[in-house]
Amino acid sequence: MSRTITARALTRKAFAPFGDVIDKPNYPGRIPINGGRARRLPPMAEAVAAGEGGGVFISLVEGDPYALPLKLDLVERHPLGSQAFIPLTAEPFLVIVCPDENGRPGTPQAFLTAPWQGINYHRNTWHGVLAPLGQPQDFIVVDRGGPGVNLEEWTFDEPWTVLPG
Amino acid sequence: MSRTITARALTRKAFAPFGDVIDKPNYPGRIPINGGRARRLPPMAEAVAAGEGGGVFISLVEGDPYALPLKLDLVERHPLGSQAFIPLTAEPFLVIVCPDENGRPGTPQAFLTAPWQGINYHRNTWHGVLAPLGQPQDFIVVDRGGPGVNLEEWTFDEPWTVLPG
Repeated sequence: MSRTITARALTRKAFAPFGDVIDKPNYPGRIPINGGRARRLPPMAEAVAAGEGGGVFISLVEGDPYALPLKLDLVERHPLGSQAFIPLTAEPFLVIVCPDENGRPGTPQAFLTAPWQGINYHRNTWHGVLAPLGQPQDFIVVDRGGPGVNLEEWTFDEPWTVLPG
Repeated sequence: MSRTITARALTRKAFAPFGDVIDKPNYPGRIPINGGRARRLPPMAEAVAAGEGGGVFISLVEGDPYALPLKLDLVERHPLGSQAFIPLTAEPFLVIVCPDENGRPGTPQAFLTAPWQGINYHRNTWHGVLAPLGQPQDFIVVDRGGPGVNLEEWTFDEPWTVLPG
């Protein structure tokens, strides 16, 4: 069972080296706005767009479902910007990231979101494909648009297998 | 019934002078990504952050419900950035905007969203408070953070009344 990893629950702490968790936190820190009729929570993520002529855009992505175990042979990263995925349905999805090791992805880590959790990959973080589980899922995407090469892909010599937790 | 406006359905065309509609459009233009396992739609909105040290952040806002008719006595605008609200529940909410007339808000216009529609106010667009209807609603907010004065408020001498369409 070499080249096998197991998905675990997505938490802010475990995901911190790779990005931000976007959800409705239980902790305090709500700031009243609109005359007290609404409350703003502290920012959960920054959308970063580097490079000449780049900007931050809000888009929508339709994802087809995957099943576990999942074969992982490709990861990618975006050198010029962060990338957030916010699900528009409650179903959990799979988030796969890798630490960088001298310009190439190290051992992948897989996280399973809780209902309504989204994520924001930090700029230049290796990550796997968008992976809804069991059924199609739509996502709001907040990421960089503009000129420049903002995609780097890496194909593993030998695929990884992601198992359910 | 002077100082009264009637809410109408939110459409891209009607809202274009004020901002963007964020939803899942029926039109084509989907770009395959992730080896064809996902499709990216053309960007619906740009998140703008002007001014020294500003950035784009992803936050969450909890909104208390309003009822129609709604009394509108205050609008605001953000000189340094756009502001997007993406609902996390299906319920429609009320969007109120005003054209600018020599630095002050003109006659308000009210729009009622369809389920799951969100909006992005363009930078410096006069708009009313976040107005869920009938029940509380959470929103993902994508807007500018950073130093500088990014809020201008305007209180109407005589309130407007917003009626259901």
